[in-house]
Amino acid sequence: MQLKIVLIGKIKEKIYLQKINKYLEWLTKDINSEVIILKESNPNNILKKVDNLKKKNFFCISLSEQGENLDSKSFSNFFFNNGKKIAFIMGDVSGHPATLTKKTDFDLSLSKMTMPHEMATLVLIEQIYRAFSIRKGSKYHRN
Amino acid sequence: MQLKIVLIGKIKEKIYLQKINKYLEWLTKDINSEVIILKESNPNNILKKVDNLKKKNFFCISLSEQGENLDSKSFSNFFFNNGKKIAFIMGDVSGHPATLTKKTDFDLSLSKMTMPHEMATLVLIEQIYRAFSIRKGSKYHRN
Repeated sequence: MQLKIVLIGKIKEKIYLQKINKYLEWLTKDINSEVIILKESNPNNILKKVDNLKKKNFFCISLSEQGENLDSKSFSNFFFNNGKKIAFIMGDVSGHPATLTKKTDFDLSLSKMTMPHEMATLVLIEQIYRAFSIRKGSKYHRN
Repeated sequence: MQLKIVLIGKIKEKIYLQKINKYLEWLTKDINSEVIILKESNPNNILKKVDNLKKKNFFCISLSEQGENLDSKSFSNFFFNNGKKIAFIMGDVSGHPATLTKKTDFDLSLSKMTMPHEMATLVLIEQIYRAFSIRKGSKYHRN
């Protein structure tokens, strides 16, 4: 399986970076992961990036508060039922260009609440790690 | 206004503790906040704590994935429309005793997704800080 996480703008805060990298490290045993950082200054880069990922057969998921809310078990099923290549596209503080959610295959909401960009990235990566734990039936996720 | 956040078990991870304390520090300008740590070993302590808080006229909110999902603006309105004393009761990894949500005044969900205890505490405290920002119309929360 292949996972790409597209971020608009760097994770600047060390605290978040450390924790995100820890989950990425844990994930390497299960999935080939890559974090792609796009420059904040050019929103069109996001649309181009999604086009490229779709050409390479990635199932593309945008993240927004308006997207669908899934519980962890449903997210785990969803994660493993959409092919071997999966990409998440996180917005920055100003959200996504309106045209993006039309291009992506799915619009996911981590919470109805607005979170800082860096916090949302951490919540997402932990949830991907949890998706694997649920699939494997490991103790990390308790029912 | 008075805010109490009841946690079951300490925040052990330094990364989360630092970030949570930062938000608490920012909140002190606006609200008298206190974090109360209960021992993990005795779930009945939570019920007693809630009884005590209710006697002191605290509006008591339990946190669970099954609770109501509010967006940040609705949460801000909700936060300021339930009196001057507000308490949040976070569960630990094993969740809340079934009797708790019957005792509390409201059951809130930060996300349908299951998060680690420490991450959920961070998301909550950031959301309380955001609630004040929305109320004040500050730039922290962008629409």
